[in-house]
Amino acid sequence: MIQLTRRSLFAGAAAVTAAATLTPFGIRQTFAAAPIGAKSTGIFSYKLGDYEIIQLRDGARTFPMPDTFVANVSKDKAIEAATAAYIPNGQVTIPFSPMIVNTGGKLVAIDTGNGLGAFAGSKGAVGQARSNMDAAGIDPKSVDIVLISHFHGDHIGGLKNADGSPAFPNAEIMVPAVEAAFWGDDANQSKANGFNKGQFAGVKKMMEGLKVTPYDANKEVAPGITSIASPGHTPGHMSFVVASGSSKMLVQSDVTNIPALFLRNPDWQAMFDNDGAQAAQTRHKIYDMAAAEKMPVIGYHFPFPCVGHVEKDGAGYRLVPLV
Amino acid sequence: MIQLTRRSLFAGAAAVTAAATLTPFGIRQTFAAAPIGAKSTGIFSYKLGDYEIIQLRDGARTFPMPDTFVANVSKDKAIEAATAAYIPNGQVTIPFSPMIVNTGGKLVAIDTGNGLGAFAGSKGAVGQARSNMDAAGIDPKSVDIVLISHFHGDHIGGLKNADGSPAFPNAEIMVPAVEAAFWGDDANQSKANGFNKGQFAGVKKMMEGLKVTPYDANKEVAPGITSIASPGHTPGHMSFVVASGSSKMLVQSDVTNIPALFLRNPDWQAMFDNDGAQAAQTRHKIYDMAAAEKMPVIGYHFPFPCVGHVEKDGAGYRLVPLV
Repeated sequence: MIQLTRRSLFAGAAAVTAAATLTPFGIRQTFAAAPIGAKSTGIFSYKLGDYEIIQLRDGARTFPMPDTFVANVSKDKAIEAATAAYIPNGQVTIPFSPMIVNTGGKLVAIDTGNGLGAFAGSKGAVGQARSNMDAAGIDPKSVDIVLISHFHGDHIGGLKNADGSPAFPNAEIMVPAVEAAFWGDDANQSKANGFNKGQFAGVKKMMEGLKVTPYDANKEVAPGITSIASPGHTPGHMSFVVASGSSKMLVQSDVTNIPALFLRNPDWQAMFDNDGAQAAQTRHKIYDMAAAEKMPVIGYHFPFPCVGHVEKDGAGYRLVPLV
Repeated sequence: MIQLTRRSLFAGAAAVTAAATLTPFGIRQTFAAAPIGAKSTGIFSYKLGDYEIIQLRDGARTFPMPDTFVANVSKDKAIEAATAAYIPNGQVTIPFSPMIVNTGGKLVAIDTGNGLGAFAGSKGAVGQARSNMDAAGIDPKSVDIVLISHFHGDHIGGLKNADGSPAFPNAEIMVPAVEAAFWGDDANQSKANGFNKGQFAGVKKMMEGLKVTPYDANKEVAPGITSIASPGHTPGHMSFVVASGSSKMLVQSDVTNIPALFLRNPDWQAMFDNDGAQAAQTRHKIYDMAAAEKMPVIGYHFPFPCVGHVEKDGAGYRLVPLV
């Protein structure tokens, strides 16, 4: 279903007929003179209180808007909203960005990217989190905790190397207890179809042989990092509040998929949501909380560097980039 | 006036008393365990039609809100707006980002960053455009054209190396004719004060010995790149429309300083504006045009990677990040 082309960013102009497209590099060049071919870099680091936060770009996927990308809205309406949000050509682009939190005492990875194994599928469009981690000077062997928000392949795909060996050999891999129970249940797998069916097979392959520690909601799962239940996208889906001193931020995980569609229209249900109605409820709850507390929000599928503020905007919300 | 500390991004929460601050790295660390100290990377590349666009991070400056940062609004009101835009502690942060356009036939630099010479002043907070250019694989010797938007030091400071030698030895340096006339006029210099006084001295030092080509508005100053008069910030200030095939975008240069203040409040006059009233008029004209044509807008002082869409929002505008 997903075409593994590069993401494209809209630059359509009313004054011209064809849609203009901004496309990151890596594919065919058509230059008379020498192309530079510089790749966008993928490390964004800052401090939250005393903590180091390092956002890692894993890549992005661009594909034609699927018929049921928004489960409870027509494809035409979804394309119309995408066009209004400057996404061209009836396409949709989903970026992926896991992150590292260095609490000083513990080095914590939150999610892992698509990896280069079972879930990669593409040829270089995703799976760059590991090389960006290398470039940031972070040895996966030094990671103490890998905190998994939920079991979709783009979040757990980096738990193993391409050869199937553990990518974080010295880390405690912490997984939502509800999530582990859901994806580990053969009865759930046997009745799964569509998106979930493929995920079940991938989850089994990725988690096989890995020792994991289940965790519950409202627990301090790592120093200063508290798990927040945000079900709907998956049954055990978790967000996190990261706090250091008086500073805190909300790592929303997949409370919304791309903000251009689902933050502006929080009641739209993404095709990836296991329970679309519950996911919509969760969106309102989480964003109302983040807006009230003026917490910066980190989105796994937000445009890199993935951090902004969420504000109420009519019936929906909008993403305000930092400064 | 400008404190040369790192920029800080707001994470203040209503639920906590002290303002929370996100601060990029490079300064003192207070970690028990080993700090990673990863620096944010500073290359963002994409294609516009057949053109390669490469945005280069030069760094950022953070300083307490000056008394007259907004010339026609009180400091209290400016701080209030900054706080509403999640900028903490009565401070303001200005990022800087020059760019490269590879048309295939010509390699064009638009502005140069603060450089490491006359205008740098700081110790590493700015002047990173050159190292990011190196990292992107761009040899300054291969740059054919340097297109200067206006003569402020943060735009022309990279024209020379720290030792005073030309940084782009093989490039034609194109400068707005009106700008060259203004800054080259001793009568203007003798009556300058405040911000302009310092700039005059710096401009003289930086431009000395450099061969430049003056250009006018509404000219194709490089293949597919058209100069657009946008005076007010300086008398000869220029923006550019970059077009390749049916794709185009607006390089606004300094039509607005930081969007959090001056895009939201287009009639607010920045202390750096030579003619504040004219700059405000220009803002409305340029943004109404960009919004009508749905052109992506590149801002030299926008948050990296500096590209977004500008939309009308009440009496002002808002910056919509890409997808």
